[in-house]
Amino acid sequence: MTDPLQTGATIGILGGGQLGRMLSVAASRLGFKTHIFEPGANPPAGHVADRVTTAPYEDADALRSFAQSVDVITYEFENIPAEALDLIETIRPVLPNRRALATSQDRIVEKEFLTSLGLKCAPYANVETAEDLTAAVEKVGVPSILKTRRFGYDGKGQVRLKDSTNPTSAWQELGETPCVLEGFIDFTHEVSVIGARAQDGAVTCFDPGENVHRDGILHTTTLPAKLNRSQHTDAIILTGQILNALDYVGVMGVELFVTPHGLIVNEIAPRVHNSGHWTQNGCVIDQFEQHIRAVAGWPLGDGKRHSNVVMTNLIGEEVNDVATLSQDSSVGLHLYGKAEAKPGRKMGHVNKITGPA
Amino acid sequence: MTDPLQTGATIGILGGGQLGRMLSVAASRLGFKTHIFEPGANPPAGHVADRVTTAPYEDADALRSFAQSVDVITYEFENIPAEALDLIETIRPVLPNRRALATSQDRIVEKEFLTSLGLKCAPYANVETAEDLTAAVEKVGVPSILKTRRFGYDGKGQVRLKDSTNPTSAWQELGETPCVLEGFIDFTHEVSVIGARAQDGAVTCFDPGENVHRDGILHTTTLPAKLNRSQHTDAIILTGQILNALDYVGVMGVELFVTPHGLIVNEIAPRVHNSGHWTQNGCVIDQFEQHIRAVAGWPLGDGKRHSNVVMTNLIGEEVNDVATLSQDSSVGLHLYGKAEAKPGRKMGHVNKITGPA
Repeated sequence: MTDPLQTGATIGILGGGQLGRMLSVAASRLGFKTHIFEPGANPPAGHVADRVTTAPYEDADALRSFAQSVDVITYEFENIPAEALDLIETIRPVLPNRRALATSQDRIVEKEFLTSLGLKCAPYANVETAEDLTAAVEKVGVPSILKTRRFGYDGKGQVRLKDSTNPTSAWQELGETPCVLEGFIDFTHEVSVIGARAQDGAVTCFDPGENVHRDGILHTTTLPAKLNRSQHTDAIILTGQILNALDYVGVMGVELFVTPHGLIVNEIAPRVHNSGHWTQNGCVIDQFEQHIRAVAGWPLGDGKRHSNVVMTNLIGEEVNDVATLSQDSSVGLHLYGKAEAKPGRKMGHVNKITGPA
Repeated sequence: MTDPLQTGATIGILGGGQLGRMLSVAASRLGFKTHIFEPGANPPAGHVADRVTTAPYEDADALRSFAQSVDVITYEFENIPAEALDLIETIRPVLPNRRALATSQDRIVEKEFLTSLGLKCAPYANVETAEDLTAAVEKVGVPSILKTRRFGYDGKGQVRLKDSTNPTSAWQELGETPCVLEGFIDFTHEVSVIGARAQDGAVTCFDPGENVHRDGILHTTTLPAKLNRSQHTDAIILTGQILNALDYVGVMGVELFVTPHGLIVNEIAPRVHNSGHWTQNGCVIDQFEQHIRAVAGWPLGDGKRHSNVVMTNLIGEEVNDVATLSQDSSVGLHLYGKAEAKPGRKMGHVNKITGPA
């Protein structure tokens, strides 16, 4: 455990998208400056950061001077190249830790980790060869879903296997890269828990939210989620178990399928999570500040929920509804300042307050 | 009335202190960029702004290119030189408007304006000459308080006249500048209302907060304030009256003395106000976002209070209590990232949640 960061310190953030942007704002509340490292030009996080480095993750010099200019490093996405981490880890602490990243970067490693904790996942099988694929279909069955082991997000890197589908062509579609075949789960709905763990091991979780996806992208998160008391408790406890097992520091998103036979872990994300955006208008301390507090070595804040909220993502052209949405005084708007509203692009979100908690 | 600003637009902010900093963060939530104009180096607002211009208000070229780079201009303090306003007003809209600024920049103009609305102020007299001073003391009496008409803040530019005080030496202490002599009011406590008015004339006010000062600087603001129902209503109505009379756009702070004979207006501030900082943890939309919404031509958001809050300023070395304060999970911390904790300097504030509203 390192000393708590003093106000005035600088937090380095790998990735300059909307998550980095909202992390940067949270850091400012605690008196920290931020330095964003992002390959793409004009990153949304740069509008609210003290410094921005625009360079690819392969630029060792840029990474080195970035790391030297900050006091601690965190990230807004899990697909950071290992070589970049190898380099900056020698200069400054990177939080959440490497194990959390390695676990969540690879769906097989993740599932093995979760299973080792006694948690339930969907039936799955590893696919690295054509023989694996045949064996996997035999084991998991169809319908099922073939996912790349690495670099998938927002429904990308996934193909569904139906009865009629030729598994081989599905695998070819994914570039014959290492995959996992996942069985379908008979679940009633999906919830997620945003958990936080401090450097001293303290854990706190926000209330679970209920997620609805559309075209593979999160559409809404609704608080409270439909969970009975024991499901609610299970969701919180298993999140704490995952955080502790990884000696985790920071905020993590844990996606869960709710079934009549218990909760099944879909996936974990070692970062602030889209399904935790509701905390900005539903809690005194939001997920972004909890994450900054944790990586700064500070105690966690109050994550109690004061309001019921429905978070809705604004995807692509939906951001043009802002003029109308802004007229609803019960809506908290959060726009990312992205220049162009491409299809499928997350442009912002709204948190509609539906009543007191 | 101008068209609403589109997300991606840039808001210019005159002044780069903590108010500019928190305005900049609020602007980012709505997808706006900010450009800070500030004479001092390394302004707190610069840590979370897209652009910073460091130049004095006398630098016409810097002002001109600042104004040209933004879509609308607002400010975090009322003492902007008139010449600077003359220049930038020809290039971009400046909100709140010039009349609001001129009114609040001069205590005599302000009191005449308030009186003209039928609102009550403390007894006062103008002091521009030695003869005025004698007449003022005769009219207002002692004990009373001599204040410079312009440029006073946080108890600066004020001297108390007690029985024993020589009025002339008090005036000399203030540089024999134009002053106002104000009579003491027999008030039980001070409250303030943070009101907002949109470009379409819609008005919304946050719940009044109760203020306690220490050494002339705001110490705490407590919600709810001790006000009976009719006082509460009076406070809101008179704030709306002031906003309407000035054709105001933006957030205004109105300080009120509570007396057995009604509310007396102490002063108005044409900007976001220290006594409105509690809104950050007590409401879904805080005063900073209301201000940005108003100057951007957007509808105002939901200012309903969901929690009881005590806001406490961290002055000077008090910022060193952060390590302890951060352990109280009911406390929302807001630090300004200022390098040096000088005595009397506002370094941050905390909003302690004391229960649901």
